[in-house]
Amino acid sequence: MCGNEESNSTVPSQRAPPATPYQAVQDYISNVNSYKIIESTLREGEQFANSFFDTETKVKIAKALDSFGVDYIELTNPCSSEQSFQDCKTISNLGLKAKILTHVRCHMGDAKRAVEAGVDGVDLVIGTSRYLREYSHGKSMEMIQKTALEVISYLQSQNVEIRFSSEDSFRSDLVDILSLYKAVDRAGVHRVGIADTVGGATPRMTYDVVRTLRGVVGCDIECHFHDDTGCSVAGATHVDTSVLGIGERNGITPLGAFMARMVVTAPEYTKSKYNLKELKALETLVADAVEINIPFNNPVTGFCAFTHKAGIHAKAILANPSTYEILDPEVFGLSRYVSINSRITGWNAVRSRAEQLGLSMTDEQVKEVTAKIKQMADIRPLAIDDTDSILRSFHLELQQS
Amino acid sequence: MCGNEESNSTVPSQRAPPATPYQAVQDYISNVNSYKIIESTLREGEQFANSFFDTETKVKIAKALDSFGVDYIELTNPCSSEQSFQDCKTISNLGLKAKILTHVRCHMGDAKRAVEAGVDGVDLVIGTSRYLREYSHGKSMEMIQKTALEVISYLQSQNVEIRFSSEDSFRSDLVDILSLYKAVDRAGVHRVGIADTVGGATPRMTYDVVRTLRGVVGCDIECHFHDDTGCSVAGATHVDTSVLGIGERNGITPLGAFMARMVVTAPEYTKSKYNLKELKALETLVADAVEINIPFNNPVTGFCAFTHKAGIHAKAILANPSTYEILDPEVFGLSRYVSINSRITGWNAVRSRAEQLGLSMTDEQVKEVTAKIKQMADIRPLAIDDTDSILRSFHLELQQS
Repeated sequence: MCGNEESNSTVPSQRAPPATPYQAVQDYISNVNSYKIIESTLREGEQFANSFFDTETKVKIAKALDSFGVDYIELTNPCSSEQSFQDCKTISNLGLKAKILTHVRCHMGDAKRAVEAGVDGVDLVIGTSRYLREYSHGKSMEMIQKTALEVISYLQSQNVEIRFSSEDSFRSDLVDILSLYKAVDRAGVHRVGIADTVGGATPRMTYDVVRTLRGVVGCDIECHFHDDTGCSVAGATHVDTSVLGIGERNGITPLGAFMARMVVTAPEYTKSKYNLKELKALETLVADAVEINIPFNNPVTGFCAFTHKAGIHAKAILANPSTYEILDPEVFGLSRYVSINSRITGWNAVRSRAEQLGLSMTDEQVKEVTAKIKQMADIRPLAIDDTDSILRSFHLELQQS
Repeated sequence: MCGNEESNSTVPSQRAPPATPYQAVQDYISNVNSYKIIESTLREGEQFANSFFDTETKVKIAKALDSFGVDYIELTNPCSSEQSFQDCKTISNLGLKAKILTHVRCHMGDAKRAVEAGVDGVDLVIGTSRYLREYSHGKSMEMIQKTALEVISYLQSQNVEIRFSSEDSFRSDLVDILSLYKAVDRAGVHRVGIADTVGGATPRMTYDVVRTLRGVVGCDIECHFHDDTGCSVAGATHVDTSVLGIGERNGITPLGAFMARMVVTAPEYTKSKYNLKELKALETLVADAVEINIPFNNPVTGFCAFTHKAGIHAKAILANPSTYEILDPEVFGLSRYVSINSRITGWNAVRSRAEQLGLSMTDEQVKEVTAKIKQMADIRPLAIDDTDSILRSFHLELQQS
């Protein structure tokens, strides 16, 4: 009594859908066609619970990130330990295409050590929220600005690129950080950063702050999002990432998820600039280094990212993958899989599998064997060879009858 | 030469920060203080590559979801297989507080079978994008509307709750779906649904469509987001979830991530309505049923969600957890962990561990042992007992000297 009839009426001819149907209406602050990646696996990622990167591993990861095409590679503060300082020097001397940054507290001492380490740029950070000023460094906004300007003018004398960021920006007084950013912008920093240090901002809050800031500073704007509430990708343009998102607590925007987003939002720029086919190897390298499994649902590379199961989905995917795929697996050097091993499969998916196996059947026969598969799948999980043998034996009976 | 000096100047007294600093400015369509959850682990989740739920497992999951407090439980189309029909009947007869829904194609045959199964409500769905109309069911918008109105009036005669949703809404012609939704709203459906079936919408695109739709229909609005590009949580108010986000391909909005988001956005409503302490058990139940590991970075329950490592973070967390936590682990019946086993630890974190171990030291002595720990951590990964023994032996030497 269930409707599995299919209408054969054709769709009235109409103009083709846009090439990238998910292009949002652009606005004046949009930077999606020239965003840059500040890759922080070797800094934020070192704050991940499981991380211990020896020098050899750091070099491997830095080279892989460079080959992938990231614009900047951010390293742990050379003041953290002697080895951190040495590793900073080593990676700065690799002669990579990517610019090497280190992320330090807004202290003259940290800044000088960063310069000694030979980096191309320094990411200065200081807490500006009432929480951090009270419970972390105890400085007033006036003191913060005074120190910032001293450190900035020192770094300028050393010809390094400078990013100035507040920590916990979304819980800081908006007027406080706008005046601070206005001052450092006038002082000539290359970027100011907005950091959702505790991971509570929504995409719309981010958009509102960035839009406001865009009207106040002339320099570039960098965003750093933590993933505590599952919002770390959304809204980002200049963005900090780490491979698999590893970082403090739940980590930050994952490089792969950001690539998945941007290959939809800005396909040409993203595909031409980054070696997307290297993503899986890069993630595997880092996952092994920190001894974690790649999450089952990891964007792009999760084992089920391109598996289609429901009959109604499978039918359309077989006719045109765009029906249920926003990402083309081939762009990432991956392939799709249409599962027919369940009670929710459909006869179109089964027909395609039968054709793959070279078993010719009429639609009626395919519907019959599909019913058999659903019957079996109601009883126990089926593997691909289970369904194949059901198909083969059914086809054999047809020959013999 | 690194600045680890700490200013002791106090912060000028000022008004306390708002209780929930991440509250965005509300607008007229906001529904964050009365959102409802349509939990689809037993429908969308059955489309996950690994899923095979036998009846007993389905009943266990349905009861756990009901105890957690979800508003609706959505089940697989009873037309998928005989067992799917039987399970629909079984769960509808459990007498749960949650309303039982089933998700069916917009066909009279499917609708009648759903009613036979005894559900409280029916979620009707039909593809409206050019892709799906051309490659899936081949119906014109006129035919879709005609069928929809027939099916709706039948369901009304059966007194079941009705949700009407387009599939692939974001790649459908906006005028097409607005006219369709206007018609079904007038016909009296309870909810219309926006589905990002292929997972490519951004939060701002979602906001724009929902805002527009809000001006067109009087009924409730449901959102269904897929996670292919990592944006499935953002922007949702009436939302479809599944435990761990399991579903077709990479799945949909995870229940836990949505709870993490909403406990920040609407703390009172969320904490009073849902049994957040049951989240971990619920996720474990489903993860075992589909044989997957809970991702290392799963919101709230991932093993590192509440682990703090960097010295600058640890120092502040120890003074006030709000400095680096937007989520209070205790709300979910979990606890935090401050790691000191790495080169990026700091002396404040080490001091607190020393105090936990009852080892009294001066700040100077703590800084000295911190240097030793960083030295060791530069060489190899350290376990908690490694650092504890470094602390103990250092303390012992102090006594003996």
